[in-house]
Amino acid sequence: MNEAAITLDGWYCLHDFRAIDWTSWKLVSQEERTNAVDEFVQYLEKINESHVAKTGSHAFYSIIGQKADFMLMILRETPEELQELEAEFNKLAIADFTVPTYSYVSVVELSNYLAKGSDEDPYQNPHIRARLYPELPRTKYVCFYPMDKRREGNDNWYMLDMEERRKLMHSHGLIGRSYAGKIKQIITGSVGLDDHEWGVTLFSEDMLQFKKIVYEMRFDEVSARYGEFGEFLVGNLLDNDKLANFLTVK
Amino acid sequence: MNEAAITLDGWYCLHDFRAIDWTSWKLVSQEERTNAVDEFVQYLEKINESHVAKTGSHAFYSIIGQKADFMLMILRETPEELQELEAEFNKLAIADFTVPTYSYVSVVELSNYLAKGSDEDPYQNPHIRARLYPELPRTKYVCFYPMDKRREGNDNWYMLDMEERRKLMHSHGLIGRSYAGKIKQIITGSVGLDDHEWGVTLFSEDMLQFKKIVYEMRFDEVSARYGEFGEFLVGNLLDNDKLANFLTVK
Amino acid sequence: MNEAAITLDGWYCLHDFRAIDWTSWKLVSQEERTNAVDEFVQYLEKINESHVAKTGSHAFYSIIGQKADFMLMILRETPEELQELEAEFNKLAIADFTVPTYSYVSVVELSNYLAKGSDEDPYQNPHIRARLYPELPRTKYVCFYPMDKRREGNDNWYMLDMEERRKLMHSHGLIGRSYAGKIKQIITGSVGLDDHEWGVTLFSEDMLQFKKIVYEMRFDEVSARYGEFGEFLVGNLLDNDKLANFLTVK
Amino acid sequence: MNEAAITLDGWYCLHDFRAIDWTSWKLVSQEERTNAVDEFVQYLEKINESHVAKTGSHAFYSIIGQKADFMLMILRETPEELQELEAEFNKLAIADFTVPTYSYVSVVELSNYLAKGSDEDPYQNPHIRARLYPELPRTKYVCFYPMDKRREGNDNWYMLDMEERRKLMHSHGLIGRSYAGKIKQIITGSVGLDDHEWGVTLFSEDMLQFKKIVYEMRFDEVSARYGEFGEFLVGNLLDNDKLANFLTVK
Amino acid sequence: MNEAAITLDGWYCLHDFRAIDWTSWKLVSQEERTNAVDEFVQYLEKINESHVAKTGSHAFYSIIGQKADFMLMILRETPEELQELEAEFNKLAIADFTVPTYSYVSVVELSNYLAKGSDEDPYQNPHIRARLYPELPRTKYVCFYPMDKRREGNDNWYMLDMEERRKLMHSHGLIGRSYAGKIKQIITGSVGLDDHEWGVTLFSEDMLQFKKIVYEMRFDEVSARYGEFGEFLVGNLLDNDKLANFLTVK
Repeated sequence: MNEAAITLDGWYCLHDFRAIDWTSWKLVSQEERTNAVDEFVQYLEKINESHVAKTGSHAFYSIIGQKADFMLMILRETPEELQELEAEFNKLAIADFTVPTYSYVSVVELSNYLAKGSDEDPYQNPHIRARLYPELPRTKYVCFYPMDKRREGNDNWYMLDMEERRKLMHSHGLIGRSYAGKIKQIITGSVGLDDHEWGVTLFSEDMLQFKKIVYEMRFDEVSARYGEFGEFLVGNLLDNDKLANFLTVK
Repeated sequence: MNEAAITLDGWYCLHDFRAIDWTSWKLVSQEERTNAVDEFVQYLEKINESHVAKTGSHAFYSIIGQKADFMLMILRETPEELQELEAEFNKLAIADFTVPTYSYVSVVELSNYLAKGSDEDPYQNPHIRARLYPELPRTKYVCFYPMDKRREGNDNWYMLDMEERRKLMHSHGLIGRSYAGKIKQIITGSVGLDDHEWGVTLFSEDMLQFKKIVYEMRFDEVSARYGEFGEFLVGNLLDNDKLANFLTVK
Repeated sequence: MNEAAITLDGWYCLHDFRAIDWTSWKLVSQEERTNAVDEFVQYLEKINESHVAKTGSHAFYSIIGQKADFMLMILRETPEELQELEAEFNKLAIADFTVPTYSYVSVVELSNYLAKGSDEDPYQNPHIRARLYPELPRTKYVCFYPMDKRREGNDNWYMLDMEERRKLMHSHGLIGRSYAGKIKQIITGSVGLDDHEWGVTLFSEDMLQFKKIVYEMRFDEVSARYGEFGEFLVGNLLDNDKLANFLTVK
Repeated sequence: MNEAAITLDGWYCLHDFRAIDWTSWKLVSQEERTNAVDEFVQYLEKINESHVAKTGSHAFYSIIGQKADFMLMILRETPEELQELEAEFNKLAIADFTVPTYSYVSVVELSNYLAKGSDEDPYQNPHIRARLYPELPRTKYVCFYPMDKRREGNDNWYMLDMEERRKLMHSHGLIGRSYAGKIKQIITGSVGLDDHEWGVTLFSEDMLQFKKIVYEMRFDEVSARYGEFGEFLVGNLLDNDKLANFLTVK
Repeated sequence: MNEAAITLDGWYCLHDFRAIDWTSWKLVSQEERTNAVDEFVQYLEKINESHVAKTGSHAFYSIIGQKADFMLMILRETPEELQELEAEFNKLAIADFTVPTYSYVSVVELSNYLAKGSDEDPYQNPHIRARLYPELPRTKYVCFYPMDKRREGNDNWYMLDMEERRKLMHSHGLIGRSYAGKIKQIITGSVGLDDHEWGVTLFSEDMLQFKKIVYEMRFDEVSARYGEFGEFLVGNLLDNDKLANFLTVK
């Protein structure tokens, strides 16, 4: 009997990473830059309306190093909204001064490994709803990475039976829980939607916690034997003032 | 004795993914953009004539995230037609504002794993013909990914005997069938034609079903031990109105 | 004792794949395009002189999908000639409207796995000469892919003894022979010359045969356990008329 | 019981590699080049103030070969400072003539494998502080590479128990210590921050020592069985005079 | 006890591969092209002074296929000289019409696997000096490829003891010696300097010998089980006349 894990699925999610083309940005007039920033801020304020209305959420961070200059992570009810917001960004003046460097399509996911059996409809449970349709925090730091469960020789997660997987995930979850209060974690599932199986987005007031949790988990069998990791991107919170400052050139 | 799987093969298939070069697109006049969109729509209407005449079919979707902005999937009787339609697209004005990001060459395929023996010529069977020369649906969502069967150490699909493969594919097929009505699946074979062995194109009215079917199948031995997956691309249906809207910039 | 396979080696070979930069091509005048096509045709006619004189051969095909727009495969007696023809192409006007996308350097090769022992100098045998210095056919379709023999754990071709390899290659060759009349195959060796160990170029009047032979062989132990494949490119025959038509834009 | 290694963590670190766009650089006037170099030197002098004040440190080297033309490695107390210095560089005139080729985000790290137990707070120990907040040397040569510990079949570092890892690291450390006086090594941890688990930066007055230490260590079980290495970049020390000379064109 | 191989190390080495941007090259005036070629020839003559004075050496070849158009391999006493010659090339006018495609940093290396014990300082032995500070030949053909020794499961070169490695290298060396007079081989070590562990540069009057030696060695256990190969590049000798001819466009 097939023992696929059952998931609960919430908002659709797009992580959109962009680098700034600083050379072009400097070439245009101060006025053109100011207008582009103003229009960008309006766009960000518009998408914030969903965040306020709790019909969606988003996070906006600068990214350290050359992989990108900023990340906009957007949660919405439908794939169409993600597509429309992406197109709307591309039509902004600021987009002409950015280069797409990486994106990720997924959906907020809770798995049943740690769930207690219940007759209740989980989609009606307010605690579960808060996790499926989360208000993304405004912590100082963010970390994003995609990952897979390994299917290789004797280390094949998908050939383990449910009980074994549940036991391993339980131990894994204990590590996660020990970071409660330090790290807020959003798991998004991307099997069938993008190149890895999950995206992990971590939020914290202390960037070092990203290193601590991922390193500690790596010694846990779930990661040690079964974890395959894509690229890691980290960044600092951007608000309107920081954004304006970030984009100001002489 | 060699026990290669036998296939039935239908229309040739080209998946063509393109990103829009928004910066160039915004640089030209509104009139030039209108003309380019009109010409593109004419091209789409022309290829739709085959769809109506059932001498071919196609699907046209916007793609979410940075991998592409749209996908045109075309089915035709001959490789020459695919080449000609590709060249014809490249000669359109709109093509100058797009960047090729990914393509896939294959042919609609049915395998004999699940077939019942029969004396009948399968190419005369109307049920089989409908699957070899399919009318692509106009569902809200599409998902495309290429895949291989693994040949690695003890997990070597091609070293299994036919009976073993048939048994595994049977169990795999049961999962697929449980999604009947929710997902329409087109399998195209690309051994000898492109870099993976198959392309899988899924159509659905609910994007979440793509995640559900691929995840459920991943726990099935055929995928768990023998599946190797390329990149996954998902998108939303485009019609002429949506296309015009998508390409409208201020 | 080292039991390296012995090879017979014929003409040097360059596969040169190019994409057309359609946007630039459309930007120049009709006259400039006509001149560029005329000059390109002259180049093709010049290289055809070797084909006629049997001092070399070549094949010219459009390629389906985004990997390239055309392939020019050239066989010549010396590496210098390949280099010169490549440079000569680069100096043509048409080259300014193409982007190199892939190339492959190799030499026509026959291996001794299937050879009968003989005292005769094989380079004097007309049947062998015809295969080492082949006249490339003008079939409707072409398929090219590079490949390696695997050296991985228990699946290490190069650790097998000669007898084992010969037996496996014999069975492999039987499949190949069953496609006689349907497919013409040119094997070129590239160990020490390019990134894979062999290039395989298939010619046929029916593109489906490429899929059939490669798929059938994949179930044969030589490919199933020991074959590693690079990218696959397929295309349609180009002649001067088709080329002119292909390059005509409004 | 989970036996994750415990780390001590110091300054945040950004390695920033750039290639020079020589063609553009030659196109601008001598005056524009002089101004750009002067401004770049001012930037370098500004970041040197932290080095002098011991609130940070940095290293500046030209890179041999095409991977980059120079590397700026910066250590600072917070991720925000790294981001700001990166943005500040991007706003310099010189940045318009550079192309980002590689970067690495990490944090200076000491592991507990070799530590003696103690009740003392290690962050108060001056010897440890000197290693967590190091003054980067000004040796003639630098070498940077990222690395991982392998998790593959029987060679899975993270499945070893702490005692085994400690023993292996001890032997590894002995090799390292034998290079004392010849090589200064800075280990930065990047689990959860960038694509590999560690960055290694080596400083020496003799480039050959980089080859000697890495080669000798490769025969040690920690590297032989468990080391996975990314790309290696080496370079020569740059000071203001060498920089001016490096950037001088006729 | 650690049994790392001991190496003797000679001149530092830079392989620099460049493609020509033919489109730009054709755009400038004949006079500008002539001046650029003259200046390039002067540069080549300057670096030849070291070759004559035996304080260094170099090789200059055109490359077949799209990987590059030419390779300049330079041997010098110090890393600084390599960096300076690279920068000097970049400042030439011809550099503006080239695109860097690949480079490799290494140092001429002799290993002790085949050495006889001796009390003598090998760096004083003229036979060894001739190999550490070699005069690069001017044969018609060149072949370059980087390589590693495998560290994978049971095929882990670095876990073998010295005696086993010596025995394997002895057999490997016998194949190499059988090509004496046909091939001149320069081994450069790049552990800690570039992405692979060694670079191999082969010189011959017969390109086929590159294929023969690499293929024959591949059946030898050292390569069959332990060899991992990067990309292969081959080319034809360039002298000033051939260079001028190569760069002449109508």
